[in-house]
Amino acid sequence: MITIATKDSRKVETGLVFAADLGGTHLRVATVDRNGGIYSRRMQPTPQAEKASEIVRALVSAVHESEQNTVELGGKLTAVSVVVPGTVNVAEGVVVKAPNVPCLDGFRLAAALQSELDWPVVLENDANAAALGEMWRGAGRGYQTLICVTLGTGVGGGIILDGQLWRGADGSGGEIGHIGVDPFAGVPCTCGSRGCLEVYASATAVVRMTREARPRYPNSVLHDTEELTSAKIYQAGRDGDELAIEVFRRMGVYLGIGLASLINVLNPEMIVIGGGLSNGWDLFENHMHQQVIERAFPIPARRVKIVRAQCGDDAGLLGAAQLAFAASAG
Amino acid sequence: MITIATKDSRKVETGLVFAADLGGTHLRVATVDRNGGIYSRRMQPTPQAEKASEIVRALVSAVHESEQNTVELGGKLTAVSVVVPGTVNVAEGVVVKAPNVPCLDGFRLAAALQSELDWPVVLENDANAAALGEMWRGAGRGYQTLICVTLGTGVGGGIILDGQLWRGADGSGGEIGHIGVDPFAGVPCTCGSRGCLEVYASATAVVRMTREARPRYPNSVLHDTEELTSAKIYQAGRDGDELAIEVFRRMGVYLGIGLASLINVLNPEMIVIGGGLSNGWDLFENHMHQQVIERAFPIPARRVKIVRAQCGDDAGLLGAAQLAFAASAG
Repeated sequence: MITIATKDSRKVETGLVFAADLGGTHLRVATVDRNGGIYSRRMQPTPQAEKASEIVRALVSAVHESEQNTVELGGKLTAVSVVVPGTVNVAEGVVVKAPNVPCLDGFRLAAALQSELDWPVVLENDANAAALGEMWRGAGRGYQTLICVTLGTGVGGGIILDGQLWRGADGSGGEIGHIGVDPFAGVPCTCGSRGCLEVYASATAVVRMTREARPRYPNSVLHDTEELTSAKIYQAGRDGDELAIEVFRRMGVYLGIGLASLINVLNPEMIVIGGGLSNGWDLFENHMHQQVIERAFPIPARRVKIVRAQCGDDAGLLGAAQLAFAASAG
Repeated sequence: MITIATKDSRKVETGLVFAADLGGTHLRVATVDRNGGIYSRRMQPTPQAEKASEIVRALVSAVHESEQNTVELGGKLTAVSVVVPGTVNVAEGVVVKAPNVPCLDGFRLAAALQSELDWPVVLENDANAAALGEMWRGAGRGYQTLICVTLGTGVGGGIILDGQLWRGADGSGGEIGHIGVDPFAGVPCTCGSRGCLEVYASATAVVRMTREARPRYPNSVLHDTEELTSAKIYQAGRDGDELAIEVFRRMGVYLGIGLASLINVLNPEMIVIGGGLSNGWDLFENHMHQQVIERAFPIPARRVKIVRAQCGDDAGLLGAAQLAFAASAG
């Protein structure tokens, strides 16, 4: 494991929890205290194995390493929490479906970890955990009803209503990225539908839209870019590139259309926009707000605060930690 | 008042509640027992007055009349519940906004009734009450997480999650009719947006789509119809009229697109389709289901049961009654 960052080794007063955020590419782990303080944070590549046991082995080994660090700090580990990119049956600790870590499909991950660890183990979906993290320690502090939209490779979502995660009947709710925003003429989506929010408001979508529109912008600096990434595109947009500005305008329009539907249905207090693509906020913010104002009902549109996430890549870890504290308290 | 129906005057064992469903056109009232039995049911035109006091007067007089009937049956009135077509602040008993009964906008209806009545008074939105009614005595019996979609003059919605109404931060949630289903090319909606579900799946929409498509169907029986209504159109569809069949096909496609977004976001156990236009069920059912299968994620699409409502025009009254029993128990 590579240590990415470690906080100063101040005396740990309370028990810590182990939090892991398993992504398709990286596994991030940390120990977290009751105030959301992160004591050690590590990252390693997600084991690209056929077998779930590889993932279990990596997690168990990370827990043991974290325990050692925690004890050295004078602390104590009290619970383990893992969040995964897929549908989770929280009550049974089963990963129902995880498209980016398919070896976990149907796997009883909580039980497998539990059999090798002495702490209570909690399992959750990563987008749900990110929403909890933002409510606990980020943009959503003080709010009870918020929707967290994560603009990454895809578009994920977590819904918190009156302080409680709404997971749906099968743990597969919150798929904000698969609200139809252009269902007839829209771009086909990997989910099998067409015109989903994800095909316009994800990092992947921004790259595709840039490539598609590039011929119409012969002077764009993005012609010279070797490998297009959403980061390069929003950087170009900040520097005034018209192609990039147009792509983020479109992205903001589609995002606003999707959020307007969500606002009319759920009337939330807040929508928190996170994920890597939210770095393009300045370029899409106005277009998104404009659609919400034009399309959502006045009462919920006036109510909802649409803000940038504040926890960055830690949102999932923090949400995982909060769940672990809740579980060890109960 | 015109008595529409009265159940046999069997001995009332338990307390009854007074339930009123105030619509833009009609005021329906009934007394209801703890099992959902309806003891008297009356209907009168909604007072078309500038002043909220007219509505209060009509409701107070209906309560007194119902009380008298109840006492004659040997029963006792224990609570009063009124549902209205608009946004309601339930905690404060205020009608926030009621487009079809504008004299109630901002009116403290619960307090106004309370000052003239000796029973606890409950206020709720009519679509929310219909969802509760269907869960209590209709298609949703035994379910805890359901969405009720009412296809009437407009398209209304009520959302119940884990047995609890989800009203939203301001009581304006559940606006299923204002999910965007064709946001770019779609028909303008009275809400100010474009391409909302309501402009394709309401009775009003079916009449409009029929009128628009009629020139392309010279042999349709709907050319001879004096005043087009959605009832006449679905009757024609059942008799094989191709224009009517095409209009209900389109209506079902749009409805399915809207429901697919809802299913991806909320992962409900059940969606109950009610309202007058649900009489056209046979004509739109397959098209609606097809869109849900093509567009929603497999796990929630397999889970959700999409069924016809069973309480008809009584759904709102029954939901109102259920709330009154809950309030008088608490």
